[in-house]
Amino acid sequence: MKKVAIIVGSESDKEQIEKGIDVLKQFNIQYDFKVISAHRSPDALHDYIKSLDEKAYSVIIAGAGMAAALPGCVAAQTLLPVIGIPMAGGALNGVDALYSIVQMPKGIPVGCMAIGSSGAVNAAIYAVRIMSLSDDALREKLEQHRESLKTGK
Amino acid sequence: MKKVAIIVGSESDKEQIEKGIDVLKQFNIQYDFKVISAHRSPDALHDYIKSLDEKAYSVIIAGAGMAAALPGCVAAQTLLPVIGIPMAGGALNGVDALYSIVQMPKGIPVGCMAIGSSGAVNAAIYAVRIMSLSDDALREKLEQHRESLKTGK
Amino acid sequence: MKKVAIIVGSESDKEQIEKGIDVLKQFNIQYDFKVISAHRSPDALHDYIKSLDEKAYSVIIAGAGMAAALPGCVAAQTLLPVIGIPMAGGALNGVDALYSIVQMPKGIPVGCMAIGSSGAVNAAIYAVRIMSLSDDALREKLEQHRESLKTGK
Amino acid sequence: MKKVAIIVGSESDKEQIEKGIDVLKQFNIQYDFKVISAHRSPDALHDYIKSLDEKAYSVIIAGAGMAAALPGCVAAQTLLPVIGIPMAGGALNGVDALYSIVQMPKGIPVGCMAIGSSGAVNAAIYAVRIMSLSDDALREKLEQHRESLKTGK
Amino acid sequence: MKKVAIIVGSESDKEQIEKGIDVLKQFNIQYDFKVISAHRSPDALHDYIKSLDEKAYSVIIAGAGMAAALPGCVAAQTLLPVIGIPMAGGALNGVDALYSIVQMPKGIPVGCMAIGSSGAVNAAIYAVRIMSLSDDALREKLEQHRESLKTGK
Amino acid sequence: MKKVAIIVGSESDKEQIEKGIDVLKQFNIQYDFKVISAHRSPDALHDYIKSLDEKAYSVIIAGAGMAAALPGCVAAQTLLPVIGIPMAGGALNGVDALYSIVQMPKGIPVGCMAIGSSGAVNAAIYAVRIMSLSDDALREKLEQHRESLKTGK
Amino acid sequence: MKKVAIIVGSESDKEQIEKGIDVLKQFNIQYDFKVISAHRSPDALHDYIKSLDEKAYSVIIAGAGMAAALPGCVAAQTLLPVIGIPMAGGALNGVDALYSIVQMPKGIPVGCMAIGSSGAVNAAIYAVRIMSLSDDALREKLEQHRESLKTGK
Amino acid sequence: MKKVAIIVGSESDKEQIEKGIDVLKQFNIQYDFKVISAHRSPDALHDYIKSLDEKAYSVIIAGAGMAAALPGCVAAQTLLPVIGIPMAGGALNGVDALYSIVQMPKGIPVGCMAIGSSGAVNAAIYAVRIMSLSDDALREKLEQHRESLKTGK
Repeated sequence: MKKVAIIVGSESDKEQIEKGIDVLKQFNIQYDFKVISAHRSPDALHDYIKSLDEKAYSVIIAGAGMAAALPGCVAAQTLLPVIGIPMAGGALNGVDALYSIVQMPKGIPVGCMAIGSSGAVNAAIYAVRIMSLSDDALREKLEQHRESLKTGK
Repeated sequence: MKKVAIIVGSESDKEQIEKGIDVLKQFNIQYDFKVISAHRSPDALHDYIKSLDEKAYSVIIAGAGMAAALPGCVAAQTLLPVIGIPMAGGALNGVDALYSIVQMPKGIPVGCMAIGSSGAVNAAIYAVRIMSLSDDALREKLEQHRESLKTGK
Repeated sequence: MKKVAIIVGSESDKEQIEKGIDVLKQFNIQYDFKVISAHRSPDALHDYIKSLDEKAYSVIIAGAGMAAALPGCVAAQTLLPVIGIPMAGGALNGVDALYSIVQMPKGIPVGCMAIGSSGAVNAAIYAVRIMSLSDDALREKLEQHRESLKTGK
Repeated sequence: MKKVAIIVGSESDKEQIEKGIDVLKQFNIQYDFKVISAHRSPDALHDYIKSLDEKAYSVIIAGAGMAAALPGCVAAQTLLPVIGIPMAGGALNGVDALYSIVQMPKGIPVGCMAIGSSGAVNAAIYAVRIMSLSDDALREKLEQHRESLKTGK
Repeated sequence: MKKVAIIVGSESDKEQIEKGIDVLKQFNIQYDFKVISAHRSPDALHDYIKSLDEKAYSVIIAGAGMAAALPGCVAAQTLLPVIGIPMAGGALNGVDALYSIVQMPKGIPVGCMAIGSSGAVNAAIYAVRIMSLSDDALREKLEQHRESLKTGK
Repeated sequence: MKKVAIIVGSESDKEQIEKGIDVLKQFNIQYDFKVISAHRSPDALHDYIKSLDEKAYSVIIAGAGMAAALPGCVAAQTLLPVIGIPMAGGALNGVDALYSIVQMPKGIPVGCMAIGSSGAVNAAIYAVRIMSLSDDALREKLEQHRESLKTGK
Repeated sequence: MKKVAIIVGSESDKEQIEKGIDVLKQFNIQYDFKVISAHRSPDALHDYIKSLDEKAYSVIIAGAGMAAALPGCVAAQTLLPVIGIPMAGGALNGVDALYSIVQMPKGIPVGCMAIGSSGAVNAAIYAVRIMSLSDDALREKLEQHRESLKTGK
Repeated sequence: MKKVAIIVGSESDKEQIEKGIDVLKQFNIQYDFKVISAHRSPDALHDYIKSLDEKAYSVIIAGAGMAAALPGCVAAQTLLPVIGIPMAGGALNGVDALYSIVQMPKGIPVGCMAIGSSGAVNAAIYAVRIMSLSDDALREKLEQHRESLKTGK
C-alpha cells in the first residue's frame, strides 16, 4: 500500500495535526511526518519533495498557519494530490491561512480542508478516500468508519 | 478509465464550471454533468449519487454558490473523494459559498478549491492528479500540462 | 396543540440549544429533540424528517455549526417553516454557520436567528409567535412574556 | 385568509422586494405594501404597526439596507412573526444589513433571509409556509410550487 | 450647564459604559443613566426620549451590542446629537454592533465611537467637546485633559 | 453664526463630499472647504488646523479613504468636535477607511459616519444638530428638515 | 547605483505593476522585470533569485494575487529586503493576497504595501527610500518628489 | 553603524514590541525606543521625528493598535523607510490596525508586517536586511541567522 506524506510548517502545528495522524493510524496507513517551513527552509522543502518516490505515495497532506504558503509550494513541486490544512492561531485565527491555501491560482490545485483540527481529521479521511479508489479492503474500512460516525458523536 | 461526475447547483453556475470541463476534455477524461440543487431537488440528488456505480467513477466535482450545501451533501452520500467549488456571485460574491464548503465538520471531508472559475479549472486538474495515481499515461499528460503552465500564461 | 421538532447537528451543540428548550418548556410547548448530523447521518435525517407527521408539528428548529447544512437540508425535505440557528464555535466562531444558514438560494427558505444561545432563545420565541397565530391562549402567554422582558434584564 | 404586511425602509428597496411580491401574487395571497423608514419616520412606523389588526395578518415582511433597524423595530412592536430581508447595496453591499437584522438580542426574534432579491423571494415563500400551517389548500399549492422548483431553474 | 443622557440597551453593557461615566464625572458633567432596550422596551424608549427637555440636554450617548438599533432609534426621535457606542460581546464581538450603528442611512446621523470601553470613554470626551463649544470653562478643562493625555498612558 | 470646516484627503473625494456640502448650503451654514492629505501634506494640515480660530468654528468634518488618518489627525490637533467620513473606493471599498476612523484610541474621539456619500450627507446634518444646540432658528430649520424626510424619499 | 528586481506572478498583474515601474523610471532607477509564478514555475523562480547578484540589487519587489505566495517565497530565498504587493482581482479582490503576503511567520519578513496599483506606486517609492539611505543624490530627488505630492493631487 | 528608531503608540504595546527589540539586540544594533501616540501627542511625535538626524538612522519601526495612524504619520514626516507593525488587541484584534497601516495612499509608503509579536520580530529582521545592504559584516550575521531558522523552531 502507498504511503501518505505529512508536512507541517512549524512545531507549533503538531497539536492540531495529531488528530489527523490518529485517523491514519486507525486505518493502518503508513505515513512520513515532517516539520518543514516553506519560508524558513525552502531548500529542505524542495529536497524533501523531490526525494519522495511519487510511485510510493498517494497524497501529501500539508498544514500551515498565517501566510500559509506550504501547501501551495508543495503542490507546485509534485504531481501528487495535495491536501491543505489551514492551521488555527495568530491574530486572525486561521482566516489568513485559509485564504492562503484555498485561493490557489489556476493550474496548481490544493484540496483545502477546514481550519484547525477538524481539517486535520478530514485531511486524513480524504486521503483514505483517495487511496480506497484502488484498494477494496481500505474502502470497506472506510465504509465501516462512516457507519461509526452515524452512531457515535 | 474511470469517469468524473460533475454536479452544479444551478443553471447559473454553468458558465463558471465550463472552464473546468474544458480541462477534463483536454485530458480526454469522460464525465457526466448534471445540474441538481441540494436544496430544491434533494431526492434527485440522493438518487443520482446512489445511482452512480462507485467503481466506475474516480471523483465527484460539485460546485454551488451562496449557502452551498451541495458538495457536503454529496460527500455525505458517497465514499468517493469530493472536490468542491464555491461559485462566485450574489451579495457576498462567494465568501458564503467558501465557508459553506470548506468548513466541513469532522468525518465528511470535501477538498475545496478557489472561488469561481479558477476553482473550476483546478477542480479538474485535481481530479486528474487523483486519477493519475493509478494511470501512468495520464500522469505523463499531467506532467506535460504542468510544463505548459511554466511557459504559457 | 402542535409540537416543535428540534434538531442539532452535534452533541456539542446541546449546551447552546438548551436555553431555547427552556423557553419552550416555559410556554408548555411539546417538543421532540434529536441530534442528527446532516453530513454524518444524511439518511437518518431524511428518515426522521419524512417520519414527521407534518400535521402534528408547527415548526422545525435546526441548529448547526461550521458548514451548517442542517437547517437548509431540513427545509429542503419539509414544507414546515424551518428556523435555523448558527452555532458558535470553531475557528470562525459561527460566521461560517451564519453564512451557511442565512444565504439560502431562492425557493427553500430558512428563518435564520442570531449566532449561538441568543439565537436558540429567539428560535423558541419565534416558534411561539408562529404557533400563537392559531392559538389565542398561547398568544396571551406571549404577550405576558413580552411584558416580562420590559422589566427584567 | 389572513394577509401579509410588507414594509421596506426606502423607495430604493422596491426593486429588490418586487420578486417577493410576485411570489405572494402567485399564491393569491393578499398583502399591504408600505415604504416606511424606521429612522426617518419612526412615528409613522409605530402608528402603522399599531393600526394592524393582528388577527387579520399572519406575518410581517420587513426589508431594509445598511443599519437595517426596520425588521427589529417592527418585531419589537408586534407579536406576529417578522421576516427580515437585508437589502443589498451601499459600500458594504448588505453585510451591514445582514448583521443588523440577524443578530437580534434575546427576546425579540426576526427570521432573517438571504441578502437581496433571493431573500425577498424566500421571505414570501416562508410566509406561505407559515400560513399553510392552518390552510390545507395553500399547503397543496406550496407542494406544487416545490415540485416546480425541482424541474425548472 | 446642560446634561448628558446616557442609555444602554442591556444590564450587561454597564461594565463597558462605566469608564465613560467616569470621564463625565471627572468633568463634573451631570448625566442621567438609563438601561432601556430598543427591542424589548420600544415604548419606554419612546417615552423617555420624548420626556427629555431637549433644552436641558446637550447630547445623548447610546450604547448597544449585536443588532444595535438603540443609537439609531434614539437619533430618529430627537434632534440632539447622538453618540453611539458599539458594545463588544457576542459571537461577532461588536462588528455587528458597529455596522448597526455606523451605517446609518441618509437623514438621521449617529456619531459612532470605537467598539467597547474605548468607545465609551471617547463618547464622554466627545460630549465634552460639543458642550465646550458654548462653555469656556469646560473648554479649559478639556484642554487640561488633553495635556494630561500627552504625559500619562 | 459659527462656521464648519470641511477637509478631505484627496481630490478624488470631492464627489462623495459634495452631497454633504449641499446640505450645509441648504441650511445656510458657512463653511471652508480644503483638500489636504494627512499623509502627503502633514505640515499643511497642521498649519491649517492651527490657523483656525476655534471660536469661529463649531465642528470640523474630515473625510478620507483607505488608511484614513485624516479625521484622527485633525481630532488630535483641535478641541472642536470632529466628524469623520470613511470614503468608499479602493480594493476594500471603505472598510479600511471605516476601521481607520472609527477605532480611535481612548482620549481623542472622532464621530464616525457611514461609508461614502450617505456619510457625507449625515456629517452635515450632524454638524447642524450640534450647531442648533445654541441656535433656536437653526433648530427650527432642522425640525422642518426632519419633517421633510418623513414624506420625501 | 544598484538595481531593483521586480517580479509579478502573472501576465494579468502587468497593468497594476506598471504605475510602480513608472515611478522607478521617474527616479532613473534601473530595474529587471520578470513574470514568474511561484506556483506554476517554482524552479524558474528559484533559479532567477539565485542568479541575482545580491551585491548588484537593493530590493526585490514582488506582486501577486489570490493565494499570493510569491513575495514570501522570494523572501525565503534571498537576504535582500522584499517589498510585497497584493494584487487586486478575483472574487475576494485582494484580501486573500493581502493576508497571504502580510501575515508572514517569524523569521522571513516581507514589507507589504496596499492592495493594487496604489501599492505598486508605493513599492517603488519604498525602494527609493531604501536606496537613498546610501545615495545622497537620490535622497534629494526623493525630497523633491515628496514636495511635489504636497501640491499636486 | 546607523541606528533604528522604534516608536509604539501606547504603553500597552510594549509587550508585543519586546520580541523585536530582542532581535535587534541579538544583531548588536543600536536603537532608540519611544512611546509616543500619534493621536494623543501629535506634537511630541512631530518634534521627535524632526529631531532625528536622518543620516544617523537607517529605518524607523512604528507599531500601533486600533486606528493605527502612527506608522503613516511617521512616514509622512521622514524620508527614511518606515516599517509598520499592527498591534493585536481590542475588539477587532488587529484587523483595524492592519488596514490602518497597510492601506497607505499613493506617495507615502509603509512596509507593513504581520499583526502582533510575529510582526515585531519580522520588523527587526527587515531592518537588518535593509541595513545589511551597506554592511557586509551584518549581512554575514543575517545569513547565520537565517541558517539558524532552518534547524531551530
